[in-house]
Amino acid sequence: MSTLIQGGLVISATGSVPADVLVDGETIAAIFAPGRGPAEGPNVIDATGKYVIPGGVDAHTHMEMPFGGTFASDTFETGTRAAAWGGTTTIVDFVVQYPEQRVLDQYQAWHAKAAGHCAIDYGFHQILSDVQDESLKAMDELIAEGVTSFKLFMAYKGVFLSDDGQILRAFQKGADNGAMMMMHAENGAMIDVLVQQALAAGNTSPYFHGLTRPWQAEAEATHRAIMIADLTGAPLYVVHVSAKQAVEQIAAARDRGLNVFGETCPQYLYLSLEEQLGAPGFEGAKWVCSTPLRSRAEGHQDHMWQSLRTNDIQMVSTDHCPFCMKDQKEMGIGDFSKIPNGIGSVEHRMDLMYQGVVTGQITRERWVEITSTTPARMFGLYGRKGVIQPGADADIVVYDPQGHTSIGVGRTHHMNMDYSAWEGFEIDGHVDLVMSRGSVIVDSSGYVGRAGHGRYVPRGLSQYLA
Amino acid sequence: MSTLIQGGLVISATGSVPADVLVDGETIAAIFAPGRGPAEGPNVIDATGKYVIPGGVDAHTHMEMPFGGTFASDTFETGTRAAAWGGTTTIVDFVVQYPEQRVLDQYQAWHAKAAGHCAIDYGFHQILSDVQDESLKAMDELIAEGVTSFKLFMAYKGVFLSDDGQILRAFQKGADNGAMMMMHAENGAMIDVLVQQALAAGNTSPYFHGLTRPWQAEAEATHRAIMIADLTGAPLYVVHVSAKQAVEQIAAARDRGLNVFGETCPQYLYLSLEEQLGAPGFEGAKWVCSTPLRSRAEGHQDHMWQSLRTNDIQMVSTDHCPFCMKDQKEMGIGDFSKIPNGIGSVEHRMDLMYQGVVTGQITRERWVEITSTTPARMFGLYGRKGVIQPGADADIVVYDPQGHTSIGVGRTHHMNMDYSAWEGFEIDGHVDLVMSRGSVIVDSSGYVGRAGHGRYVPRGLSQYLA
Amino acid sequence: MSTLIQGGLVISATGSVPADVLVDGETIAAIFAPGRGPAEGPNVIDATGKYVIPGGVDAHTHMEMPFGGTFASDTFETGTRAAAWGGTTTIVDFVVQYPEQRVLDQYQAWHAKAAGHCAIDYGFHQILSDVQDESLKAMDELIAEGVTSFKLFMAYKGVFLSDDGQILRAFQKGADNGAMMMMHAENGAMIDVLVQQALAAGNTSPYFHGLTRPWQAEAEATHRAIMIADLTGAPLYVVHVSAKQAVEQIAAARDRGLNVFGETCPQYLYLSLEEQLGAPGFEGAKWVCSTPLRSRAEGHQDHMWQSLRTNDIQMVSTDHCPFCMKDQKEMGIGDFSKIPNGIGSVEHRMDLMYQGVVTGQITRERWVEITSTTPARMFGLYGRKGVIQPGADADIVVYDPQGHTSIGVGRTHHMNMDYSAWEGFEIDGHVDLVMSRGSVIVDSSGYVGRAGHGRYVPRGLSQYLA
Amino acid sequence: MSTLIQGGLVISATGSVPADVLVDGETIAAIFAPGRGPAEGPNVIDATGKYVIPGGVDAHTHMEMPFGGTFASDTFETGTRAAAWGGTTTIVDFVVQYPEQRVLDQYQAWHAKAAGHCAIDYGFHQILSDVQDESLKAMDELIAEGVTSFKLFMAYKGVFLSDDGQILRAFQKGADNGAMMMMHAENGAMIDVLVQQALAAGNTSPYFHGLTRPWQAEAEATHRAIMIADLTGAPLYVVHVSAKQAVEQIAAARDRGLNVFGETCPQYLYLSLEEQLGAPGFEGAKWVCSTPLRSRAEGHQDHMWQSLRTNDIQMVSTDHCPFCMKDQKEMGIGDFSKIPNGIGSVEHRMDLMYQGVVTGQITRERWVEITSTTPARMFGLYGRKGVIQPGADADIVVYDPQGHTSIGVGRTHHMNMDYSAWEGFEIDGHVDLVMSRGSVIVDSSGYVGRAGHGRYVPRGLSQYLA
Repeated sequence: MSTLIQGGLVISATGSVPADVLVDGETIAAIFAPGRGPAEGPNVIDATGKYVIPGGVDAHTHMEMPFGGTFASDTFETGTRAAAWGGTTTIVDFVVQYPEQRVLDQYQAWHAKAAGHCAIDYGFHQILSDVQDESLKAMDELIAEGVTSFKLFMAYKGVFLSDDGQILRAFQKGADNGAMMMMHAENGAMIDVLVQQALAAGNTSPYFHGLTRPWQAEAEATHRAIMIADLTGAPLYVVHVSAKQAVEQIAAARDRGLNVFGETCPQYLYLSLEEQLGAPGFEGAKWVCSTPLRSRAEGHQDHMWQSLRTNDIQMVSTDHCPFCMKDQKEMGIGDFSKIPNGIGSVEHRMDLMYQGVVTGQITRERWVEITSTTPARMFGLYGRKGVIQPGADADIVVYDPQGHTSIGVGRTHHMNMDYSAWEGFEIDGHVDLVMSRGSVIVDSSGYVGRAGHGRYVPRGLSQYLA
Repeated sequence: MSTLIQGGLVISATGSVPADVLVDGETIAAIFAPGRGPAEGPNVIDATGKYVIPGGVDAHTHMEMPFGGTFASDTFETGTRAAAWGGTTTIVDFVVQYPEQRVLDQYQAWHAKAAGHCAIDYGFHQILSDVQDESLKAMDELIAEGVTSFKLFMAYKGVFLSDDGQILRAFQKGADNGAMMMMHAENGAMIDVLVQQALAAGNTSPYFHGLTRPWQAEAEATHRAIMIADLTGAPLYVVHVSAKQAVEQIAAARDRGLNVFGETCPQYLYLSLEEQLGAPGFEGAKWVCSTPLRSRAEGHQDHMWQSLRTNDIQMVSTDHCPFCMKDQKEMGIGDFSKIPNGIGSVEHRMDLMYQGVVTGQITRERWVEITSTTPARMFGLYGRKGVIQPGADADIVVYDPQGHTSIGVGRTHHMNMDYSAWEGFEIDGHVDLVMSRGSVIVDSSGYVGRAGHGRYVPRGLSQYLA
Repeated sequence: MSTLIQGGLVISATGSVPADVLVDGETIAAIFAPGRGPAEGPNVIDATGKYVIPGGVDAHTHMEMPFGGTFASDTFETGTRAAAWGGTTTIVDFVVQYPEQRVLDQYQAWHAKAAGHCAIDYGFHQILSDVQDESLKAMDELIAEGVTSFKLFMAYKGVFLSDDGQILRAFQKGADNGAMMMMHAENGAMIDVLVQQALAAGNTSPYFHGLTRPWQAEAEATHRAIMIADLTGAPLYVVHVSAKQAVEQIAAARDRGLNVFGETCPQYLYLSLEEQLGAPGFEGAKWVCSTPLRSRAEGHQDHMWQSLRTNDIQMVSTDHCPFCMKDQKEMGIGDFSKIPNGIGSVEHRMDLMYQGVVTGQITRERWVEITSTTPARMFGLYGRKGVIQPGADADIVVYDPQGHTSIGVGRTHHMNMDYSAWEGFEIDGHVDLVMSRGSVIVDSSGYVGRAGHGRYVPRGLSQYLA
Repeated sequence: MSTLIQGGLVISATGSVPADVLVDGETIAAIFAPGRGPAEGPNVIDATGKYVIPGGVDAHTHMEMPFGGTFASDTFETGTRAAAWGGTTTIVDFVVQYPEQRVLDQYQAWHAKAAGHCAIDYGFHQILSDVQDESLKAMDELIAEGVTSFKLFMAYKGVFLSDDGQILRAFQKGADNGAMMMMHAENGAMIDVLVQQALAAGNTSPYFHGLTRPWQAEAEATHRAIMIADLTGAPLYVVHVSAKQAVEQIAAARDRGLNVFGETCPQYLYLSLEEQLGAPGFEGAKWVCSTPLRSRAEGHQDHMWQSLRTNDIQMVSTDHCPFCMKDQKEMGIGDFSKIPNGIGSVEHRMDLMYQGVVTGQITRERWVEITSTTPARMFGLYGRKGVIQPGADADIVVYDPQGHTSIGVGRTHHMNMDYSAWEGFEIDGHVDLVMSRGSVIVDSSGYVGRAGHGRYVPRGLSQYLA
């Protein structure tokens, strides 16, 4: 059975066009000039006055990730359902290898966790925390499985951190097999000393999470990763860029012709060290994530919006890694370093970025590009995802620019968190309908999808390389 | 009557997809997943194994331009026909205002020259050589006419040159009415002295055309134009960028968040001061154009390709301004400054840039982007032009990546020139079929269009601004 | 007869040393380790606890300069006397060529104005406002006369402005004969339009003098001058740099290895658009000078101090060009563009810069370097001036770091002005004694010199080139 | 008894002046205008037609350093004697702390090695290879001993390397007590992998020493050190800078106002990867040092000369660390990684840099500045060393610009090495006489000094900070 989404404005990365989209089964069968589609047969979804956009691709999530003795509070079920509510139809989640774990074992374990539970499609990146011969070999094997991007860390010693020799070896492999190398770019050794000194000085509140992860630690690590990328020829994708000086490193690398890219997250566009991390008492714990929120006085947020406009930063993911205040964030009362790192945003990314359209920070085409098209291209999903075109998966969002969305617990909030990092944010737009592979999973009645509808999507190599 | 272009790979700026394109009348009616189009009814064009791309948009041509006592040798008829042969389905030509001419008179005169003669669609930019109150007022009027971009010159004193105060005033108007300000960025005052000195020293051969227009003159003017854009807030588009130092100025401006863009031309990617301008005798006159060909030893060409990859340079036009050797270029025997400035390339741009795909300089998506999609967006044509989507004008090229094209007089050459600046270039691809607004104008039998098919296309404001 | 300056700390650009300085006649005869000088014979000046420094060299003054229908209010007599009061023992003043004047006539006229009137030694730069063959020839002749630096203007059309072709020709001459090319780097054509527009809009107060000379006009012109210097190979000295973006252009040029230098003035370190130019009513006229005072909110002042520390800006002159409020500045009531441009500071430069030592902005060695040693080296005076060493002219200042100086009319003010641009500034140091060519001209009793003591000093080529 | 050095041209960092220098005992008593010194009494050294310069200060030597199972082949006796031959009158040598050694023990051990053996004065830097609480405490104690600079390594794991946390802690201490932090800036972790891979691939010749230490490893580490300096506020001095990209990092830091400095060495100005490290067979071992010689094709050498002119690199030391070919360098036959790292140049630095004056790369004043004055200022010796002024130690070189020096074994070579890295270099100048603290130690008869004349010189804090 087929469906015609009629009367809307179809938005792509390059422009907008009034068009009718015919969905047949799980994919898009055709796109018609307005009124040129089949007059009879399909169900009709009326999108008059609405935007018809490719479903969001959130390339950075951590569902039920084990971290610091607890787990990220969203399971694949709750997390992908929340994503669906917010117009995101694909996530790429991170398989975690901790030291001494076998990469492929972990990859299988993540499949086991996700399979049958997801509301939307999902892919995997692989985290490597133990780069040695077997791990490098696994990189080749995983590419065959559709895992084509590998994340390393320059922080979290003993947990995630790779030394520069390990990074070099992994990057050499990436240069060889075409994998995208992803980097958490913060100098962990510097940070560990600063954290220890802060705690020793009795500076234990969440605010000090920000102060002990200064921009120099991020700019430093970003440049270091770029130099290794330059030496090896591997493409590099820097995750959760928050400091303007890190952006400058990425821009300089790109100006030199390197395949170096950067992602930012909504929190680095809207929130700040002073306002959120510096909230009274333990409140700031809600916004403890790494890289940290940056100082507004230093201008990071404004510069990040600018970087989104100029494509010095290519896309926006959430780094969705939710923890509840109760029992989880609270582990860090009296010691900020024990606060689980993470903010939950998977549900709100499309809305939060759309608000940037409303306020004139970005165009609506750029909105689609940074939330869907580029993520899909960057990580080898484009064609199936990230675009409304014949043959693509029918992952489609009908977005109402006249609608309104109030964010917060008890309002649009469906993530498994007992607070919202975005409490009180008001969005001048609304996700009216979400279709995943041809099935409507959110409509005016709310979530109408089901756990298990979402499937694993093997990915190809990056389609964004210059 | 309708036509189905079937079996091809449709390439856009963001990706490629196998799809069938239904053309009805002058526009695209629908795009289907392979085989999902109407089984009966339309004519079928078999594009199996071919690329289906939006027709080329050449945003910089000078048909029959009066210059230095002669006229560019292609009329709108011969020039647009040659363009059609090469897969370009839209040109944007420059209306010339010389000092003391009224802008709107000239605009009408250009319409008179073009109307009824063109093989393909055309738009106009307006050159302003006499910025005063009436000219500024005309800018508003021309925007209503679909002329939304205005070119100024920092060189050619007494002919085209505007002083910085005039530039400032025009840019203020552009910031106000949304027009794109275009700039020929060379410091004419510096160049005039150098030319005079070279001639006085008996250095009269074409090679000295290059030496008397050093990169400093281009980098200087580029920065100057950027500062005026920064001050006024006008968007700026620098034409025919050839020096890497000028690119660096544009990249720096963009990194600061400005709407500053640059175009290059095939000659700055392939040809050089040493090889072409330095050819023996008067031979170099073939490649006398401004900005001039740059030194390969200084690395401008390699840097320009890189800039195309990184989007520091956004698009490629031809600056098509052909002159014959006989009677035209020969005017400069014994005095290079009298050689009419210009190279003819309108026929070969799509092929020459495709060769960059073959040699790995750019991806095929980037090829489409820099030759069609971005030109259309930059100059307010997108939607009708620059993209294959329902509702768009059916300006479509079927390009055969297995084909071959040999460039040169007596081979693929249809421009009204007695030589080719590209003689001997071999292209590993071929323009098989060209459709303009639904009519096939080039097929395997050659040019099958007609003068007068092409229509004037009014343009909107730029769709590329950040 | 000889004099021994005993017990002081002799400060040079590279360090400080306790030493006794023996002056014999007009020059320094010897420098001794403390107490090692002749026990008997010379007069003794006790400098215990004081700094002994080379007399200040102010390389940018305009005594009795004709400008805008009036004359700078200090004559060579009053101006050099005020300089002496403030510890400056050499000035380099500007000979003015206006259009259609002969350079050498003007040079002789300036000699006539200065001879017999000066309290301290003086040299000349030559302003060229009419670059043509005879002026270029005069450059060679003036070098033989000890005038080795030539100033051009990119602003003041019809008065001082040279076009870029003229600048190019003059720079070629400078590259050839070794002269230092000096530049007033502001884009006059841009400024003229902005001024006209401001006046037309009724914005007539002194504040608009600042707004109509934006930093873009200075950064632009600075880059343009650098490109011409790059092309020709001439050394370039940019006068009165006030915008941080202009500093960045100079720093970038230096990082590329060019002989490009910049001077700033005390007003650009201490004063601002908001506070001074923005003073109520016509008060701001006191600080109308060009380049203008810059916005403190934009951070120009802080950046300028930093640039002095890093040697991105090499020295500090005054651009002393005083006008009285009455009858002079008042010419601009109701039209800021008629306010004579200039600030008087020749008397206070040494003190104002010393205050930078007190506040930790610069070291005391850097103080001596930027006010005396580098000016002397930059303009070919070093050896005779700018240093305390045997054989040098005995131009010596004894400065008391425990002293105090209150600046203002009726306090330390001796310039021929009816107001002070520095009214109320307090300096934690004091000029105790000034010696010019061996004669004490200022001591605790005040000025004890005489008009006519000062002599013309022919200068050699720059001693600062890399 | 006193000595008058008469008739020479005294050169300082800022200029040159004919003057006579009176030495009394160990120090300079006075400087006279020519012929104004005492007519009778002192011995007279005739310096007519010669340069009189402050003795060279070589701030980077490793006498008899234990490394890789052997010792640098020059003892304090042979090394300082060779230095004297070459016009260097002060060295600053590195006390080595290896892991688990106590800093102060090592400091005492170095005193024991040096005392009574040196021909010239010497100071110490301290190497920290084990940054922990006791080492940090020792930094304070050593400052009181006149050791005011501390060197860390980013390479040589298990031997010298500090991790970034240790570097941070040491820099914090430096920011606190004013010490200069010195850095060997190469990313050892990257290099270790590359070395291992090269050896595994059978690439064992000296050439691969260069290839396995790419510029990226140096630029990376340099930026990392700068970020830690930025965060902590410590002054930073990068040793043996060889890559232009590292220079660019230092220049950028300085343009931002940081106290970041760089030293280069003669080998990085004259020698190259291709010519020396790439010499046939095992010959390249002569030039194995770290950082390595860089590619001439990449332009590092030319850029380094430029950086010396622009003060982006502030001074030149030797990194004198000689090893003989026999028994020492030969340890690396078949495995370049076992070649002891080091080149011997302490004897030739003044001559090699003077040759840069002859060839026009630098001025003679800059020669004195980068070899003597700035080293003295940088490391707290100025006043006693680095300058010819009353009260300074009489460390004086009479240099003959008409003389000639042929470098090589059996020619001017006095270092304890069985080869010369500079064999065949010809210098158009000659060290005629060397005085150390008032004693002539080299004259026309050769070395006339004695072991034990040289004394330990405690140093103050840096006198070069902005």
